[in-house]
Amino acid sequence: MKIAILGFGTVGSGVYEILQQKNLAKQFSVEKVWCRPNDTIEIPKFCSNIEDIINDKDIELVVEVLGGIEVPFDLISRMLKSKKHVVTANKAVIARHYDALTDLAKENGVSLNFEASVGGGIPWIKNVELASRIDAISKCYGILNGTSNFILDTMLKEDEDFGDVLKEAQDLGYAEADPSADIDGFDVLNKLIISARKAFNKKLDPDDFFVHSMKQITKDDIHYFKQKGHIVKYIGEITHDEGVISLHAVPETFVEATIPSNNNIASLEGKTIGTLKFYGQGAGKLPTANAVVQDILDISKNISYIDTDNVENNDIIENKTNHYTFVIRTNETIDDALIKEKDGDYLITHPITLADIKKQTQLNDSLIVRVITQEDWHD
Amino acid sequence: MKIAILGFGTVGSGVYEILQQKNLAKQFSVEKVWCRPNDTIEIPKFCSNIEDIINDKDIELVVEVLGGIEVPFDLISRMLKSKKHVVTANKAVIARHYDALTDLAKENGVSLNFEASVGGGIPWIKNVELASRIDAISKCYGILNGTSNFILDTMLKEDEDFGDVLKEAQDLGYAEADPSADIDGFDVLNKLIISARKAFNKKLDPDDFFVHSMKQITKDDIHYFKQKGHIVKYIGEITHDEGVISLHAVPETFVEATIPSNNNIASLEGKTIGTLKFYGQGAGKLPTANAVVQDILDISKNISYIDTDNVENNDIIENKTNHYTFVIRTNETIDDALIKEKDGDYLITHPITLADIKKQTQLNDSLIVRVITQEDWHD
Repeated sequence: MKIAILGFGTVGSGVYEILQQKNLAKQFSVEKVWCRPNDTIEIPKFCSNIEDIINDKDIELVVEVLGGIEVPFDLISRMLKSKKHVVTANKAVIARHYDALTDLAKENGVSLNFEASVGGGIPWIKNVELASRIDAISKCYGILNGTSNFILDTMLKEDEDFGDVLKEAQDLGYAEADPSADIDGFDVLNKLIISARKAFNKKLDPDDFFVHSMKQITKDDIHYFKQKGHIVKYIGEITHDEGVISLHAVPETFVEATIPSNNNIASLEGKTIGTLKFYGQGAGKLPTANAVVQDILDISKNISYIDTDNVENNDIIENKTNHYTFVIRTNETIDDALIKEKDGDYLITHPITLADIKKQTQLNDSLIVRVITQEDWHD
Repeated sequence: MKIAILGFGTVGSGVYEILQQKNLAKQFSVEKVWCRPNDTIEIPKFCSNIEDIINDKDIELVVEVLGGIEVPFDLISRMLKSKKHVVTANKAVIARHYDALTDLAKENGVSLNFEASVGGGIPWIKNVELASRIDAISKCYGILNGTSNFILDTMLKEDEDFGDVLKEAQDLGYAEADPSADIDGFDVLNKLIISARKAFNKKLDPDDFFVHSMKQITKDDIHYFKQKGHIVKYIGEITHDEGVISLHAVPETFVEATIPSNNNIASLEGKTIGTLKFYGQGAGKLPTANAVVQDILDISKNISYIDTDNVENNDIIENKTNHYTFVIRTNETIDDALIKEKDGDYLITHPITLADIKKQTQLNDSLIVRVITQEDWHD
């Protein structure tokens, strides 16, 4: 199978490297690499004109690993219209343009795969699809951002403060110069919007979420929760109707409490399978490239895990109003009715709805931590 | 697709139940159930004569969920020779007769799938196959037996002794009247022999393993390790040439230390993917039946994850002599050269080889615990 790669940054060069392995090189040939010219590295099969890829009938599959949204969206669309399969790691494009792109793939009789867009090297999308063939999935949750987990894990283990560890993460290349996507929750939001499509066959919008930044966390906060037997993690969770992305206080005996460094873990709950958890490297050159190559292999073997024409919810999951308990540290005023008790600097809420917490816009710059109990995750 | 089920115990009745779900009942029809007559439950589609299944050309797939070894081996062989696909959960049969049965399936152009044989509901076999398409897998390890994990978790959390918890596990139906397979390691041995075929394409024999029972563990031992920051778990590990199945002292900050109750976790290490971990219910009616139905779905969609004719190790994994550190509590005499230090009742070895520890047959009834460090599992 002849392949083109759009983008030759970390992931793109990793995909190229893996495809040179002798077990893969005999099946796949990278014919063209389209990217910005670069004087510092040699780009194999460099191609400066995107039309040369679109018009090359021998190229059956295109890997899109550019940054950004509008350019990749346009290019993925054009490749699908040219009846080329597309594999992408671009979560922002898939989350935003899911219907348009999956429809375009279907109309043109080609595949659009995006395993690497959620959880990096973890085979999450595949395993959600497999589970959904049998079970109605009721919930997904996990640590889906490696940068925020690296920051919290280092703050805990090295007893350092947020700003210092963020700088360290930036120096190591784990965090961007503008870290907002990672620490304010928008990266996780895209991943959960994609997961909801796969797990529930449902379209969640950003408005269906409570998204709260991790940036107010201090080492004193981490000590406070540790004393109570909790480890603080940055976690996202979705049910069929809503999602929450925020700091979570997780009992230290729970699996999620132990996830080290920049690793990820993603869980699903199904009716007959119970809870499944998938752990691995959520980012990084070779793990992410591995997920891209897994998609290439599936497409080349014509493996589709689910019948896209035959997706139905096996069971109706009842809409119910979920309740969440939060711990808040703030200088702002809060409605007394929400607060169950005060513990030093910390206010502990009653179990409240996401609508309740979303109304508290005066808390945008306060610490908000959801508290997890056995009932939330271990039924 | 028309299906027969051999055996209508816990797993067999679970498979029947899941196949009645409306999303599956339109694709699959259970035509015959062959099992021992039973006065206490009604057996749907009961069939007393196995020849009626063998001779029924409409039955394309047979689920084998009987107990035992020789009868299931004979029946699986006959079904494959009759050109029927077979799905089995029987780890003992697959571990012992892997070559004979996979050859028979190949000769007859049918599939033999056994996802449920390792890790119950965890999609372990599938994900090992997927990972092995790209990476040379260097190591697999994990908690692969729910009964032994239930016993150790309960001993730790309830501060109870081994015998009392074993009895509780038997009363709950987690442990057999004869618990030897679970607590002496033979259940895990079968699972690792199967995993080695899938992960490394290698045939490991029982002789390649050091297998040591968990039954000498006391609550004092658990306290001793806890004080050192370790949780005691019953774990198996394989590399390309050898395996170890024994109690392991795992740092309490490691994922494996937190696995609760009768759950399982299985890990693999690959060159480009790094470490992947898969967690779920390793036994139980519906999770195990779910894994059987996943195999049925794959066969019905003609999905094969790897080219069985094209299996090759992507890289040569160098044979190296691995070293393991053990803590021993014994009344027997041990070669001084093996021992690095003594700590109260406990002898701590130097890093030694499996050949070294296997020679110490006088320790068969002693406590032997392997100690895990960052180097062992988190490279």
